[in-house]
Amino acid sequence: MTPTYPDILDAICPADPNTYAQALARHETLTKPPGSLGKLEPLGAQLAAIYRTTTPTITGKAIAVFAADHHIAHEHVSAYPQAVTAQMVHNFLQGGAAINALARTAHADLLVVDVGVNADLPDHPTLLKRKVRAGARNFLHDRALTHAEATVAINVGIETAQRQIDAGANLLAAGDMGIANTTPTAAITAAITGIDVDTLTGPGTGITEPQRQHKIHVIQAALDRHQPDPADPLDLLTALGGLAIAAITGYYLAAAAHRLPAVLDGPITTTAAFLATKLNPNTRHYLIASHTSQEPAHQAQLDHLSLDPLLDLHLRLGEATGAALALPLIEAAARILSDMNTFQDAGVSQAS
Amino acid sequence: MTPTYPDILDAICPADPNTYAQALARHETLTKPPGSLGKLEPLGAQLAAIYRTTTPTITGKAIAVFAADHHIAHEHVSAYPQAVTAQMVHNFLQGGAAINALARTAHADLLVVDVGVNADLPDHPTLLKRKVRAGARNFLHDRALTHAEATVAINVGIETAQRQIDAGANLLAAGDMGIANTTPTAAITAAITGIDVDTLTGPGTGITEPQRQHKIHVIQAALDRHQPDPADPLDLLTALGGLAIAAITGYYLAAAAHRLPAVLDGPITTTAAFLATKLNPNTRHYLIASHTSQEPAHQAQLDHLSLDPLLDLHLRLGEATGAALALPLIEAAARILSDMNTFQDAGVSQAS
Repeated sequence: MTPTYPDILDAICPADPNTYAQALARHETLTKPPGSLGKLEPLGAQLAAIYRTTTPTITGKAIAVFAADHHIAHEHVSAYPQAVTAQMVHNFLQGGAAINALARTAHADLLVVDVGVNADLPDHPTLLKRKVRAGARNFLHDRALTHAEATVAINVGIETAQRQIDAGANLLAAGDMGIANTTPTAAITAAITGIDVDTLTGPGTGITEPQRQHKIHVIQAALDRHQPDPADPLDLLTALGGLAIAAITGYYLAAAAHRLPAVLDGPITTTAAFLATKLNPNTRHYLIASHTSQEPAHQAQLDHLSLDPLLDLHLRLGEATGAALALPLIEAAARILSDMNTFQDAGVSQAS
Repeated sequence: MTPTYPDILDAICPADPNTYAQALARHETLTKPPGSLGKLEPLGAQLAAIYRTTTPTITGKAIAVFAADHHIAHEHVSAYPQAVTAQMVHNFLQGGAAINALARTAHADLLVVDVGVNADLPDHPTLLKRKVRAGARNFLHDRALTHAEATVAINVGIETAQRQIDAGANLLAAGDMGIANTTPTAAITAAITGIDVDTLTGPGTGITEPQRQHKIHVIQAALDRHQPDPADPLDLLTALGGLAIAAITGYYLAAAAHRLPAVLDGPITTTAAFLATKLNPNTRHYLIASHTSQEPAHQAQLDHLSLDPLLDLHLRLGEATGAALALPLIEAAARILSDMNTFQDAGVSQAS
């Protein structure tokens, strides 16, 4: 059983640098010109270091989409009404959203987690009902979460990962759903990186430039009000965070504690990656960047974490869609190391 | 039954622009912010235009790797000995090459085609034995192929596509194997695009800079000798071509004649795409660029064809490895259009 937060922080070890080096060395012996598989080669070595074997195997893929509302939405920071969060959860459960289509393509199991949707949701086999509260508070006026709420939400993420691992997954991917979620994301990212709010604030789901200026104003006012400590993940989460961000933070901690890779999606999940790596820097070893989003905060975040994304498809959707699209590439990187013959096995001549 | 070359050229129609527009319009109604799936949206519309339906479905994926030798290899243009072509075919048949691992990941059927390997190869269920001759001639001294040889090789590609379609594939991907294959590729690309040979000549599988200078000299001398007509695909093929390039040209023509999408791999396959689109410009509608290779000719080729690649993973392997990695993304683009709910179906509120 995975320990809960904060005890889990003591259970996260570094990935194994020896296996990383052995996997890179194995790549030189496989029947292809050295380095010719580009980014798949260091990715395979990362998987090797995580799984502690130079022949890693993906045995099960799981996606968790964490849904929660943000009452900062009342400040008119999104193009969509708050009700869309719950409507989209219904859509996930019906199988009609983008992530449903992409999870099917990736042969991945999908679990939806209500960690804070501002609506009653039905019982459903693919919905884990763990509402902490009906949305994070409006952080222009209040702290978004109490310390207790943030802790419970982190533990929802840990429980979610545990359930998916128990069901056979050894590659985990998280995503989020929540109207206004790019607002806490930009706020936390600005607080952590020092990058100005204007640079980090994008059109989200499609607001106009005057609306974007208003969004910048709201975020800056919240930062001025709370002055969170960038070195204290719980202070950032409770001042500015969302319940999905907290849960995804826990999900990444749990993946790392179980020595399994976790795939990032867009800027909301990468905000959780910031927090998880601040809580225990070893967590960074287990994270894989799936794609770079069109949302401007995202590339800045990835640069800050020194993560090199696999895809650049101009996505800006969330829901773990970018992560789902990257799963076959990650599986490919594992199979290359596991399935390929060496020059010696195959009797193939090497370069002169 | 597919017509053979050259009759097939009369069987290639444009993709349907009305269905393309309808698919883009359908994207606006699906439960996601408009445009939020980035490159997957025009890709889905391309698939819709090819299949003539706004709800395209990938029912079977097939990869063909065309293997052939190039006696230009005797001019020391590659890091590997010519024997590696046949050794790698054995490796494909054993299931131990990169493309075997990646075809498994993509759930795609793999067929290997001997269209000109300079060795006897065994009977094997996944090998189609259609050797036209034991390698293209050394085009520094001779024309690479006769007109009859080029025609037969094109028809091998058409037959290969027909076999895979008959077995249930409706998404086709080609790749190549042949030591020295980047040399005819750079030569044909220089002749078609007018780009200088230095820019188009890369390290291939890993030659040194003095070897690269020698390779440039060989290619330039061949171009000076043959002075092929850039508007005449058969003149280019017979002067400078390879048997795999000819066969892949036929494979793309067959995909287009069957109104099915064909996925490019690296620069060798893209050279075939040049020739196929010169033979019938409608072929272009059916082509999907999987990735941009590290080989410098490739991006120049894609730009010339106005093709936007899906992936940039720094690959430089060939064997259809880039194409295989893109297959799940193409399937995803189809599933988005076929599987997703509209806002109306799902009862989700739209942007204000």
